[in-house]
Amino acid sequence: MKVLVTGFDPFGGEKINPSIEAVKRLNDKIAGADIVKVEIPTVFYKSIRRLEKALDEEKPDIAICVGQAGGRSRISIERVAINISDGRIPDNEGNQPIDEVIFEEGDTAYFAKLPIKAMVKEMNKRNIPAEISNTAGTYVCNHLMYGLLYNIHKKYPNMKGGFIHIPFIPEQVIDKKGSPSMSLDLIVKGLTIAIETAIKYDEDIKEIGGEIH
Amino acid sequence: MKVLVTGFDPFGGEKINPSIEAVKRLNDKIAGADIVKVEIPTVFYKSIRRLEKALDEEKPDIAICVGQAGGRSRISIERVAINISDGRIPDNEGNQPIDEVIFEEGDTAYFAKLPIKAMVKEMNKRNIPAEISNTAGTYVCNHLMYGLLYNIHKKYPNMKGGFIHIPFIPEQVIDKKGSPSMSLDLIVKGLTIAIETAIKYDEDIKEIGGEIH
Amino acid sequence: MKVLVTGFDPFGGEKINPSIEAVKRLNDKIAGADIVKVEIPTVFYKSIRRLEKALDEEKPDIAICVGQAGGRSRISIERVAINISDGRIPDNEGNQPIDEVIFEEGDTAYFAKLPIKAMVKEMNKRNIPAEISNTAGTYVCNHLMYGLLYNIHKKYPNMKGGFIHIPFIPEQVIDKKGSPSMSLDLIVKGLTIAIETAIKYDEDIKEIGGEIH
Amino acid sequence: MKVLVTGFDPFGGEKINPSIEAVKRLNDKIAGADIVKVEIPTVFYKSIRRLEKALDEEKPDIAICVGQAGGRSRISIERVAINISDGRIPDNEGNQPIDEVIFEEGDTAYFAKLPIKAMVKEMNKRNIPAEISNTAGTYVCNHLMYGLLYNIHKKYPNMKGGFIHIPFIPEQVIDKKGSPSMSLDLIVKGLTIAIETAIKYDEDIKEIGGEIH
Repeated sequence: MKVLVTGFDPFGGEKINPSIEAVKRLNDKIAGADIVKVEIPTVFYKSIRRLEKALDEEKPDIAICVGQAGGRSRISIERVAINISDGRIPDNEGNQPIDEVIFEEGDTAYFAKLPIKAMVKEMNKRNIPAEISNTAGTYVCNHLMYGLLYNIHKKYPNMKGGFIHIPFIPEQVIDKKGSPSMSLDLIVKGLTIAIETAIKYDEDIKEIGGEIH
Repeated sequence: MKVLVTGFDPFGGEKINPSIEAVKRLNDKIAGADIVKVEIPTVFYKSIRRLEKALDEEKPDIAICVGQAGGRSRISIERVAINISDGRIPDNEGNQPIDEVIFEEGDTAYFAKLPIKAMVKEMNKRNIPAEISNTAGTYVCNHLMYGLLYNIHKKYPNMKGGFIHIPFIPEQVIDKKGSPSMSLDLIVKGLTIAIETAIKYDEDIKEIGGEIH
Repeated sequence: MKVLVTGFDPFGGEKINPSIEAVKRLNDKIAGADIVKVEIPTVFYKSIRRLEKALDEEKPDIAICVGQAGGRSRISIERVAINISDGRIPDNEGNQPIDEVIFEEGDTAYFAKLPIKAMVKEMNKRNIPAEISNTAGTYVCNHLMYGLLYNIHKKYPNMKGGFIHIPFIPEQVIDKKGSPSMSLDLIVKGLTIAIETAIKYDEDIKEIGGEIH
Repeated sequence: MKVLVTGFDPFGGEKINPSIEAVKRLNDKIAGADIVKVEIPTVFYKSIRRLEKALDEEKPDIAICVGQAGGRSRISIERVAINISDGRIPDNEGNQPIDEVIFEEGDTAYFAKLPIKAMVKEMNKRNIPAEISNTAGTYVCNHLMYGLLYNIHKKYPNMKGGFIHIPFIPEQVIDKKGSPSMSLDLIVKGLTIAIETAIKYDEDIKEIGGEIH
């Protein structure tokens, strides 16, 4: 079994991106599976092309992309990616698409192909604050998640895949009054549990975890 | 021109639902169009059937559903509805679906058929705090929005339609420490501007309004 | 009976200050009392001197200062003023004291001489979201509240007095994503009830309203 | 040099209190000083009596009380304690005083006798999110801080002392959607730096750290 895990490079003025830092610290074997780690540029389309190259070369059984969600207090497993890019800020190469479709021939949205409720439950059971998120935004994170699921639907029907957002780490919030953070150790532990769960569960569990709005 | 506007009955232990209160206070004519107002039960599927009946009887040019998003501080125009119901709490008849598809033959998601950026811009221009939202949740609000857009896609290709979430009104937050609210007057003014804008704009404008996550 | 009510001029880059806007809109008579309105500059010490002049000229029975607390969602009645100035930003004349005592011969703090619990209860009863606050900050609002109570303790032992913080109004938060606001009408109604209550109650009521931290 | 550090037992339905957990994990020597650790009951007055016993027996040079501030995202050094108890919830023995003076012969408030700005700066410098807080609330934390500073002012004029609030730890927020947390390791590291700084600095530094409200 092989699991591809990706993290992003820093963006939006940050010096580090905890997603690639956490991915780098993952063990090379989790629950018997080989973990392949790839860094993704925070750039529209270039991010997807880098991912496609890795999917093609590695042919993983599971692909999980990880990104920074500054301001969130928990690890959040994304439920859905939508076929639109709408940049609040430019990406790392200055692109700022406004309401542009990602792939013309793609569906309006794709749901994560991961046992998202089980992943949240297992993390919570081991004291890692986690939750389902119903929006990955409209920036490069959603863009990459959409690109991953588009590829899975078009080319890799047996592959599982999805996206995990993680909070800022403490050193990033020193100058951000009021912003929550999570230690890198806890994030790495949470991602490890999430990956284990993605390996173990072929079907998701029925568990309350929706949002009223 | 005819505009159908719907609001919900109270749910989740609340005595009132500001969405139907606001809808009732709208003028019967806005920008020359007839405004038809319908109250929707906060019940999975029954809500959609009530809406379908109104669409069938009234054949409106535009249909806008309004719902309460307690805890939000601004009027939010929803961008997308997803094909899933995942109830955090039971609806008003005790149904609590977990991760159930709404319409088997529907798309994974539908984007609002409204000039959402223009609606936000016009409200903000007239001092009504407004924003785009990228998730309508997974409860009856998303369910109804999905049902509306499903009907538009399948039966009424020329109809515009979408969903607007509004904050609690002040009387609802007396016992909710920390929760923001918006006065009913301001909400009614905001909805009026939103409806005017939906009438006037056939194409949306290009305007920054996305989210990083 | 005479009640002095003060509001501040704009500061911190804002074009308006809702405190003086709300004060200006108060009736000239509330519960039979004459309402005298004074605008205060957002400047350390100059603010207190302007207040002292008004206290001396008007000899009010009650003095209530009102200030803007951007980011709060409710009207808050301040419980205590502390003998320190610690400016996060410069005042309107460029002064930025760091940890400086306000009056060397003053107490470390003074409690509001107002029926604060009754004021909150009466506002809430009439659907105005209100609460007790245990800190007025360390900027010009706390400074003026301290100056008022210092004067009451030293020169006007029979005068009642204190401070009320109010939220941003909607037009101020258009560009402040996530910030709550309150309509000016509701603020004016709230202040009116607060003033009536200050006139009617000589003793405060026993009512839960503390904070764990 | 001897430093007394106290933590509380659990209250408000929590199974643990991170304050005593963190205090227990402190080294027995910090910056050459002996660290004496005491657990305090979350009970009005009994808490102060337990502290007074420890002050009397140990005669520390510095006394720092630590408490849980659930919902805050940073370690916060309290600036001031006020002479009032106003319980939002009952304490661990069912007492719920409303607006009661703590010590009749005490001042209205006491400022912390600690280099609070230096403590925040040193923690931030080493990537521990920290800030000044201007209110310790009106519950047992403020009560104990007031009791400590009252004793310092009346009996131990050369003793330094104050109060530090810490966030929930991750395991406490599993069921508290939206609440931030901080890992126990980081809290212990933060407290260690805070204690070192309290030992090293006899005078506080001039550093921006106030609040507008």
